Amino acid sequence: MNPKASSLRTVEWLDNKVVMIDQTKLPNELIFVEYNDYNQVANAIKTLIVRGAPAIGVSGAFGLALAALQSDARTKDQLILDLEKAQKILFETRPTAVNLKWGLDKIMQVARQYDDPVEIRKSVVEAAKKMADDDIQINKTMGKNGSVLFENNDTIMTHCNAGALATVAYGTALGVIRATKESGKNVKVIATETRPVQQGSRLTAFELKHDGFDVSLIPDTAVGYSMANGLVDKVVVGADRIVKTGHVFNKIGTYQVATMAKQHGIPFYVAAPLSTIDLESKFEDVIIEMRKGTEVTGIGDKKTAPDDVDVINPAFDMTPPELISGIITEKGVAQSPYEESISKLFEAN
Amino acid sequence: MNPKASSLRTVEWLDNKVVMIDQTKLPNELIFVEYNDYNQVANAIKTLIVRGAPAIGVSGAFGLALAALQSDARTKDQLILDLEKAQKILFETRPTAVNLKWGLDKIMQVARQYDDPVEIRKSVVEAAKKMADDDIQINKTMGKNGSVLFENNDTIMTHCNAGALATVAYGTALGVIRATKESGKNVKVIATETRPVQQGSRLTAFELKHDGFDVSLIPDTAVGYSMANGLVDKVVVGADRIVKTGHVFNKIGTYQVATMAKQHGIPFYVAAPLSTIDLESKFEDVIIEMRKGTEVTGIGDKKTAPDDVDVINPAFDMTPPELISGIITEKGVAQSPYEESISKLFEAN
Repeated sequence: MNPKASSLRTVEWLDNKVVMIDQTKLPNELIFVEYNDYNQVANAIKTLIVRGAPAIGVSGAFGLALAALQSDARTKDQLILDLEKAQKILFETRPTAVNLKWGLDKIMQVARQYDDPVEIRKSVVEAAKKMADDDIQINKTMGKNGSVLFENNDTIMTHCNAGALATVAYGTALGVIRATKESGKNVKVIATETRPVQQGSRLTAFELKHDGFDVSLIPDTAVGYSMANGLVDKVVVGADRIVKTGHVFNKIGTYQVATMAKQHGIPFYVAAPLSTIDLESKFEDVIIEMRKGTEVTGIGDKKTAPDDVDVINPAFDMTPPELISGIITEKGVAQSPYEESISKLFEAN
Repeated sequence: MNPKASSLRTVEWLDNKVVMIDQTKLPNELIFVEYNDYNQVANAIKTLIVRGAPAIGVSGAFGLALAALQSDARTKDQLILDLEKAQKILFETRPTAVNLKWGLDKIMQVARQYDDPVEIRKSVVEAAKKMADDDIQINKTMGKNGSVLFENNDTIMTHCNAGALATVAYGTALGVIRATKESGKNVKVIATETRPVQQGSRLTAFELKHDGFDVSLIPDTAVGYSMANGLVDKVVVGADRIVKTGHVFNKIGTYQVATMAKQHGIPFYVAAPLSTIDLESKFEDVIIEMRKGTEVTGIGDKKTAPDDVDVINPAFDMTPPELISGIITEKGVAQSPYEESISKLFEAN
């Protein structure tokens, strides 16, 4: 088995089907799944076959494109009703990442612009495909914007997977690391395992090793040790939702990585496209998804906890703006005060 | 399978053999192993069949008792040479916990007090057995001393396993929690999984659930979330070594739990017997054991990281005194300034 994931697209539209890498099988097997029903896409998002905020945004859009093709509606109204039903099912898969809502809303806007059901179907498919292509371009621009923040010979810690596998390709946080290397600087990476789902060991270590990066894996418990022992120069992570005050919702454990970085005077950056920024919600209103306890009580078939133990398993946590050195986007790097700098990113849009 | 570990002794001397619970098999199976060769005991310490600073201190002592019985020396000098050889092999199994050195030194002192090899053998066995009995008594006294620091309806977070399974019985940090409950206060416990070896999910959750405690398991990444969301009132952990300045060496991840506790104004306590306090070493001279990468790249047979990825896997980290609200011992609770309060504990001894 020699998976070549990062030379491939995480999620793609091919012959009127959605093709995805099944990320639950990595790093041991590279398996592609094909869907022609939006309900399958919804299930894939829910079960983490596809994950990462930008990737599920595009997957949601592709799900709507499938729904448009699946619908036998002969009128605009009927087709919009069918699309709204699919939008609801796709939206309810995961509550925290805002890119999913963004992707679905954007496709629905396109659908509503046309009157002829045939034209709606065609436009929706084209818009979803364009969203996927744009994602790669946005990541590359974001990478360039972020690369200036990193120096030659930096060792960069990252948490979870905000890489090619969290996007269509290239990645957000790992895109910044890729662009830094492409700019001629030598970098090393420390990847946290990221329990319970282990996106760090299964996906980030896999993806970076595959692309020839110098990457070391640590258990999540060794973040403090690594920083206290001078092994980390900077941190960069992705985000699932950023609100206008600069509070960042990202994979569980991000908050403590950011706190440890602050304690050691290590810059802590977040890399995310504007589609991850939610200008409407207040941080206290964002719902943190709670996932099933079996993610924590074992790994695969291996049981590592007693039967029926209670489990607290939040998928995300919130990092407050005072711990964040900068938010890297395709429109530039926002810095404190965030309410002002984030607002400016959108003006420039 | 209905393991009854906490009604049993973690390590015991029975019919001139050392009997231990094989902790690598918990929580799925309760298996006892029997040794009549000190090399087997050394291997058991190295492979984590027995772990926890006080438990390996007593195991080291029992190892020397086996060595005394194994030796066919006819003179004191020859027997002491044989014991010194065994002491070296037992000592080199794990470098960080100081109780191992303490237990071995104490037995060697006893051995050197006698001239007749028969008497040496008898005294060494008796001293090791007494050390095991004393461990339980010390834990119970420590528990009482610590219990006054906790209030009715407190939810207490603990990291790793500093329970009955880390000692001969009762436990240090979990001993304090036991004593708090025995004093009539209602307590809940949040146990961190404690990757990579998962002593929290495999041992602490098992031990506490078995004894009827209300215990919830979290991944190590959810420490910050739990504290930020008001789920934690206090923290108590064990220790593998405490130096006279109050720097605490304990399971990897302790430092970040302590940092998060400080950030949220949550009291952070350490519970350990005086035998864990090393008055001689400076914190910067303590060797942190690095363990093999395969502990992090998989769980059991389940591989969760790519082949040959580099791994940084320290077994312990250091928590500085400014993060510690108190060190609970069998002689009282030391508080800042630690150099003074720790020294006083030994004066009272």
